[in-house]
Amino acid sequence: MPAIICTVDVVLLTLEGNALKVALFQRDKEPFKNTLALPGGFIHEQEDQDAQDAAARMLRDKTGIASPYLEQLACFSGRGRDPRGWSVSIAYYALVPAIALTGIGASGGILTPVERVKGLPFDHADIVRMAVERVRAKSTYSSLPVHLCGEQFTLPQLQAVYETILGEPINKVSFRRKMEELDILEPIAGAMESGKAHRPAQLYQLKRQFLRQLSLTDRGLNSGST
Amino acid sequence: MPAIICTVDVVLLTLEGNALKVALFQRDKEPFKNTLALPGGFIHEQEDQDAQDAAARMLRDKTGIASPYLEQLACFSGRGRDPRGWSVSIAYYALVPAIALTGIGASGGILTPVERVKGLPFDHADIVRMAVERVRAKSTYSSLPVHLCGEQFTLPQLQAVYETILGEPINKVSFRRKMEELDILEPIAGAMESGKAHRPAQLYQLKRQFLRQLSLTDRGLNSGST
Repeated sequence: MPAIICTVDVVLLTLEGNALKVALFQRDKEPFKNTLALPGGFIHEQEDQDAQDAAARMLRDKTGIASPYLEQLACFSGRGRDPRGWSVSIAYYALVPAIALTGIGASGGILTPVERVKGLPFDHADIVRMAVERVRAKSTYSSLPVHLCGEQFTLPQLQAVYETILGEPINKVSFRRKMEELDILEPIAGAMESGKAHRPAQLYQLKRQFLRQLSLTDRGLNSGST
Repeated sequence: MPAIICTVDVVLLTLEGNALKVALFQRDKEPFKNTLALPGGFIHEQEDQDAQDAAARMLRDKTGIASPYLEQLACFSGRGRDPRGWSVSIAYYALVPAIALTGIGASGGILTPVERVKGLPFDHADIVRMAVERVRAKSTYSSLPVHLCGEQFTLPQLQAVYETILGEPINKVSFRRKMEELDILEPIAGAMESGKAHRPAQLYQLKRQFLRQLSLTDRGLNSGST
């Protein structure tokens, strides 16, 4: 049996100041010690049930986040991607609201706009690029962006999140129709957004069954219909 | 570094007698010796550039097929899936015309309708199920099914392939519009299907640039428009 290096890496994404950002952490070991990289590491055979479990453990250790939306991205592999030898990285992506990441500086983490990522070791730049593509593609027809919101949000706030991810304005009527179709939101009884000059807006939350599972639509949000 | 078992498995799919079938081969080693399973095996560090390269090698060794349409499906991992210990399988799927598989009996292979797969070892049944779901989902908005056709085919033949994969009839006008949108086909000059009672139909082939790369549409074939 060949000795393949087998690791897990996580692309942790959030929305901050209207930009999609990825969490990078200083590596505390060789190779590439002290370089910013994706959080990741070896699978712990005794501790981890499977690779997703390992990814969740790494995120928990780095950020304290217990159960973010976490999905497998792809497996990156080959002879050349790690100076230590033939290696496999099972890559995951996670989406969290920015408020969940306020403390990452304490563990050597920073948030970088995904367009400005550079100088990453291994093939981490490719992994980030694929994750961003996947999130943008899935956002056109699913509930994925809602995981970038906090626990409570108004429909205009959620629409702004979709617009930032998709990089284009969305017609309000068509957006609300899509949200009804996805059937992922429930109004929070009696909860209105306050402290704004205009009329207070109803606050919503994600239905519990969609915390881990996406809701999908047949037609995309940006497929031309308004 | 933990000793993770690191393998590659391939879901080789074809269309035969109007049914989507998966190629299974008798395992020649323990565990599960002599049981039908997906073709797969260990990565060869010296020989394989990456996991996709390993998957292509395994297909070549089992079937003689040199360069099928081959794409990564997902990574399956965990403590319980292989009796030998904590393991990772990087799973791929490949689509080939049935004519390319006429000789697989000689290497202990059989073609089984995907709905009738049973008794597979490891989590191979889950891998097959995910591959079939992926192929069906991608077929609604891409050129994927064309890889199940031979080198030359008529538009009605290609439409029948799409209909078999999607499991529903497709409006002819809407199908032809989608094919134009995908822009993957070129007529073969002077080549007509012959030997049929009705008027001979133009033969087409896949444009070379789409042999390895899918063409995608924004809206699905079965998204309601006719």
